[in-house]
Amino acid sequence: MSRVAPLSGFPEWTPEGRRVERHVIDTLRDEFELHGFAEVETRAVEPLDRLSDDSEASKEIYALRRLKADPEDGDSGLGLHFDLTVPFARYVEEFSGRLAFPFRRYQIQKVWRGERPQDGRFREFYQADIDIVGRDSLPARADAEVAVLMARALARLPIPGVTMRLNNRRIVESLYRGLGISDLNGTLRIVDKLPKIGPDGVSEVLAAAGLEARAISGVLSLAGVSGGEQAFAEGLREVEGEYGGDHEGLREGIDELTETLAVINAAVPGVAVADLSIARGLDYYTGTVVETFLEGHEDLGSISSGGRYDSLVAGGGFPGVGMSVGVSRLVGRILSAGLAAATRSVPSAVFVAVTDEDARPRSEAIADRLRARGIPAEVSSTAAKFGKQIQAADRRGIPFVWFPGDTGGDGQVKDIRSGDQAPADADAWAPPEQDLKPRVERL
Amino acid sequence: MSRVAPLSGFPEWTPEGRRVERHVIDTLRDEFELHGFAEVETRAVEPLDRLSDDSEASKEIYALRRLKADPEDGDSGLGLHFDLTVPFARYVEEFSGRLAFPFRRYQIQKVWRGERPQDGRFREFYQADIDIVGRDSLPARADAEVAVLMARALARLPIPGVTMRLNNRRIVESLYRGLGISDLNGTLRIVDKLPKIGPDGVSEVLAAAGLEARAISGVLSLAGVSGGEQAFAEGLREVEGEYGGDHEGLREGIDELTETLAVINAAVPGVAVADLSIARGLDYYTGTVVETFLEGHEDLGSISSGGRYDSLVAGGGFPGVGMSVGVSRLVGRILSAGLAAATRSVPSAVFVAVTDEDARPRSEAIADRLRARGIPAEVSSTAAKFGKQIQAADRRGIPFVWFPGDTGGDGQVKDIRSGDQAPADADAWAPPEQDLKPRVERL
Repeated sequence: MSRVAPLSGFPEWTPEGRRVERHVIDTLRDEFELHGFAEVETRAVEPLDRLSDDSEASKEIYALRRLKADPEDGDSGLGLHFDLTVPFARYVEEFSGRLAFPFRRYQIQKVWRGERPQDGRFREFYQADIDIVGRDSLPARADAEVAVLMARALARLPIPGVTMRLNNRRIVESLYRGLGISDLNGTLRIVDKLPKIGPDGVSEVLAAAGLEARAISGVLSLAGVSGGEQAFAEGLREVEGEYGGDHEGLREGIDELTETLAVINAAVPGVAVADLSIARGLDYYTGTVVETFLEGHEDLGSISSGGRYDSLVAGGGFPGVGMSVGVSRLVGRILSAGLAAATRSVPSAVFVAVTDEDARPRSEAIADRLRARGIPAEVSSTAAKFGKQIQAADRRGIPFVWFPGDTGGDGQVKDIRSGDQAPADADAWAPPEQDLKPRVERL
Repeated sequence: MSRVAPLSGFPEWTPEGRRVERHVIDTLRDEFELHGFAEVETRAVEPLDRLSDDSEASKEIYALRRLKADPEDGDSGLGLHFDLTVPFARYVEEFSGRLAFPFRRYQIQKVWRGERPQDGRFREFYQADIDIVGRDSLPARADAEVAVLMARALARLPIPGVTMRLNNRRIVESLYRGLGISDLNGTLRIVDKLPKIGPDGVSEVLAAAGLEARAISGVLSLAGVSGGEQAFAEGLREVEGEYGGDHEGLREGIDELTETLAVINAAVPGVAVADLSIARGLDYYTGTVVETFLEGHEDLGSISSGGRYDSLVAGGGFPGVGMSVGVSRLVGRILSAGLAAATRSVPSAVFVAVTDEDARPRSEAIADRLRARGIPAEVSSTAAKFGKQIQAADRRGIPFVWFPGDTGGDGQVKDIRSGDQAPADADAWAPPEQDLKPRVERL
């Protein structure tokens, strides 16, 4: 049998780490629901022909085969989903008759990518997606609604602040067209390398792809435009003055981006800026596109991306906008960088000691009376000396030990951090609010 | 591309159905944590050689292969877990240095079984497991602790009452030995067919397996023993008088089962009975074994099973006891039999109407003030006539519509079920507690 060892790319946490992950997931869920988003969960598998297309993400799919299948049964024809968009699109198509549109949904599930093990990337990870999907139409302000919700949700997590960088495909498309560029997506894929290879590198690759000097200079000037609503508008006006553009789409794109930035920043001041170098996803998205960076952790790349699309469903008719956050990558960073930790490893607020085995029912009864009032409790598994029992509680980080006593009353409860001890009634005593359940605290 | 259709064995729910599933999962989690059990989550995959053994459950494994793997990379060597015990055993071995024993853990995750599609069984489903694992030793009363916790958790779900049927391998083993039966597990596998083929059928198969008439009669008499602590002890005494038994193990087994039943029934009156015909899992479990049946839904088979094992880890040293509940199967039955339903399909308690598009920020501000106090709210996506907006809220089952009004104050809030409408302050008004969040109600 293979030895017991971590599998590269398949993260697992200690119970304390899982508590942090749960906190992140529950916090996202809470904020999403406060905004009226309903949860959807899809199966983990899709038919392979629905998963596999030419997109980057679909390159690495885990296909399933039944280990002991009869040969005549053939392959299962199924693969694990690599994101939550493909299954959600299928779900909307399948359930559309039973959904009310605009449909606001969130979805928090694991996804799998069959990366080469040596690449060190996650091969199994949690993703959390929010989308608003309309029937036939969806107002432009839904773009801002999704970004505001994601910004608010991220602000509640134990992580530093974020900046959302927005672009709009219509602006890029119309200016590129004005520059005589025909291969829009190919050009964007090169511009996407800007953070890695710099303007000189991009310039070289664009030239190799056949772009003229003026087009290259225009592309780089446009990619250099960024900032808040004001700065972006001014910068863009300069580029427009210099290089022109297809003015119909351009005006609409600028208005959309300006308005979206204004609404986001009104709700979450200063979180959003325009950045016309954002190119990722512009081959899929048709309007707004967003990437989100974590202050001091820019090496993570975008922690939450998304945008507007013409239709979720291939046949058309379901315009939408969505954003996705890589939960496992965030949790991995929170744990590895020590950004936050759980206050204890077990849910128990109270460890009920056992005086001797014959008196165990007394201890069980005290624990049950605490639980009946929502106070997590566990009973000592041994009737060892109290010193040993206190140690056992301490090892688990349980703040209170309850000594049932021999006669009358319910005994005493001790705060093992301060050493304070006092008689208590199991139907009335409660720990301080902050000790009731394990919490996740910023460090 | 394959048509959009449900995949047999991969259940998916509407948002309302998912709300019921979430309720079941959250309720289990809450009860488990009240009892001090900590959550563990393991990766979905294990090396194939750890998954595949001779057990029934391991027969149908989904193996993974990278769809676009280089040929020299070969197979991934990984498969999806088919239960939560195999990964938990590996986790305990891998993390043992960082866990405090006895370790009480719960785990709620999906598992996959590559059943033949035509068999109509679930191929992807949620399972919820609880286990207590000791280091080197674990008291017998942990068996009762696990059963009590599972009984309490199940009692909080929107399902009918349950009966737990307990057996103990030591009793069966010693009586079988007294009957001269050498193939213990083979005999148990035949006895397990009792509900399907009846005593005559079992008798025939046992005879075909080479058992003598007296042994067959003894096996069937033993399997006929059931009831509470009293009835079981009396019934067993008769069988013992008639057929004898290996008295050392027998006495211990009887004491263990009697004591376990007594502790369970003291905590959850009447939930547990002895049933010496329970044979499933006795090849793996080494003491207590439990199966749980849902009143009026016995066709589901055991909805929650488990037992005591000598060691979770192959090398020994980690004795434990655990139970597992098939969450998806329960949720499927709750939905198909109409046992419970969600009070609405979306989280929103309040639908904030929009008077006209220019006044939308006013509506957004009201929604934000409600959300700041934990009241889920959504803003109308259109500024259509109020009648239409009320319809949109009604379609989602949202109980309250807020009309922002034009001047002064925050406008009025209407309960669209009763038609009651009154002026309200967005910083003070709250819906009745039962309307705050969607609830899952027994029907």
